[in-house]
Amino acid sequence: MSSSFSKFIQEHKELLEKELKRYIECLSAPDVLKEAMDYSLQAGGKRIRPLLVFSVIEALGRDTTIGLPAACSIEMIHTYSLIHDDLPGMDNDHLRRGKPTNHIVFGEANAILAGDALLTLSFRILAEMERLDISPEQKLAIISEIAQCAGAEGMIGGQTVDMASEGKTISLKDLEYIHEHKTGKLLSASILTGAILAGANEVQLEALGKFSKHLGLAFQIRDDILDVEGNEVLIGKPVGSDVDNNKSTYPSILTLAGAKAKLTEEIDHAINALKSIHFENSYLMDITKLVAERNK
Amino acid sequence: MSSSFSKFIQEHKELLEKELKRYIECLSAPDVLKEAMDYSLQAGGKRIRPLLVFSVIEALGRDTTIGLPAACSIEMIHTYSLIHDDLPGMDNDHLRRGKPTNHIVFGEANAILAGDALLTLSFRILAEMERLDISPEQKLAIISEIAQCAGAEGMIGGQTVDMASEGKTISLKDLEYIHEHKTGKLLSASILTGAILAGANEVQLEALGKFSKHLGLAFQIRDDILDVEGNEVLIGKPVGSDVDNNKSTYPSILTLAGAKAKLTEEIDHAINALKSIHFENSYLMDITKLVAERNK
Repeated sequence: MSSSFSKFIQEHKELLEKELKRYIECLSAPDVLKEAMDYSLQAGGKRIRPLLVFSVIEALGRDTTIGLPAACSIEMIHTYSLIHDDLPGMDNDHLRRGKPTNHIVFGEANAILAGDALLTLSFRILAEMERLDISPEQKLAIISEIAQCAGAEGMIGGQTVDMASEGKTISLKDLEYIHEHKTGKLLSASILTGAILAGANEVQLEALGKFSKHLGLAFQIRDDILDVEGNEVLIGKPVGSDVDNNKSTYPSILTLAGAKAKLTEEIDHAINALKSIHFENSYLMDITKLVAERNK
Repeated sequence: MSSSFSKFIQEHKELLEKELKRYIECLSAPDVLKEAMDYSLQAGGKRIRPLLVFSVIEALGRDTTIGLPAACSIEMIHTYSLIHDDLPGMDNDHLRRGKPTNHIVFGEANAILAGDALLTLSFRILAEMERLDISPEQKLAIISEIAQCAGAEGMIGGQTVDMASEGKTISLKDLEYIHEHKTGKLLSASILTGAILAGANEVQLEALGKFSKHLGLAFQIRDDILDVEGNEVLIGKPVGSDVDNNKSTYPSILTLAGAKAKLTEEIDHAINALKSIHFENSYLMDITKLVAERNK
């Protein structure tokens, strides 16, 4: 990783985490609810979605801070989805990133409500973005994009099929549907939100759309590979849980070698999309390599 | 109830229910998710929030259909909150409006996801309202208002305190906090959304704000009274469940007679607010009477 990219990541993560904290602190709401919201927001993670928002804006030559509210909003949506996915009625997970999950700490009712509150707050933030250099039309386009990608036609649709597929052997096509929706759509939303904020043109929007699709699949394939050969300490949860849960994954359908070949293919497509709009020297390229090679 | 008010209710309920169905039908999403969303949306209910949106617009002399998308959006938020409130991790209710609750029919995971999807869709609808007579600024003001009223500072905050108070005796002040937030805020949002859409002036906005506060409290007091002396068949759930659950209510804190006196007082305040802006002949007056006298 180049030192300028490391610095970019570190600076923007700090900015983001401070702002996420601030959004919760200034809420006039019951303490337990604020604590539950804050707990999961501050539980770390790669912050890949916010970094995508910032990197797209940077690649398009605009001031990255224009993306701060939207980056917080998208991270809140990602976080709420993790809280709800971990619930006893869903995956019933007790550990997330090496820490007890939200309902283990705050109880099931508060975890459901903290998730609902994060989702609701994410749209409030988008509607209330105060920067004069974001037009009302841009704000509405972003709300529409994010709501599409996070909703029944996107992330929630993917999670629904994922839950229905548990314990069943599924086809590669169904697996791709799940991941394109469950993980891919919110990654796409991050990239397109950055593009809308920075005023991307049609050609750039189309290439970034392609980029986001391949990056999303690559991200999920890498996730599945890590569940086979990752380091438990680094990924913060037990390795092999997909096999234990009888879950269909890229390695289980394509073999481990096949999954790795598909990862390389998706990464190549993603890089070609960036090259087509001359973004090969942007941080988007670094993020793509990070997704391909990450070990947590 | 006057015949013109009955007709107004019937026509607008039909319009609303058809549109709610259409929103779900055109989603490209897993069938089970769409069925779960549709099931609770079509489970009936008084549709008081949408009727408030339409009545405010009518009182301000505008075409009521301008409020249709926002009315659907608010009804979706109300419906998601009922689905999540009924979950085993929350109130664990098996019946709602005389029908099995969402998680009883579709399972817990689908019920959580259907709730999340309705909440997300509600904001998408607001961002995508297509009418040319609604400006981008009005759309954003409505999204902000509804997200505030439905979120941690509003409905979800109220539900959090309600859950934390279960089995405890609480003060009248705490009870008012719960109801002002859990029920009152979304009723307020309905009224203010209608006002924003119809271009209300400052004086009208202030009076409608007062009206909504008193109407919200009256609504909840009447709910508590019905739980003591209501008809099980009409309200669609067992009478006396608040006492059984050791729940603090207006009758339990103020006595039944005290609660009835407080109901009269709140209704008077609501009516006075309407009179102050010469809305005493509008359907808002009929809705106020309906809230005071309803038996389901």
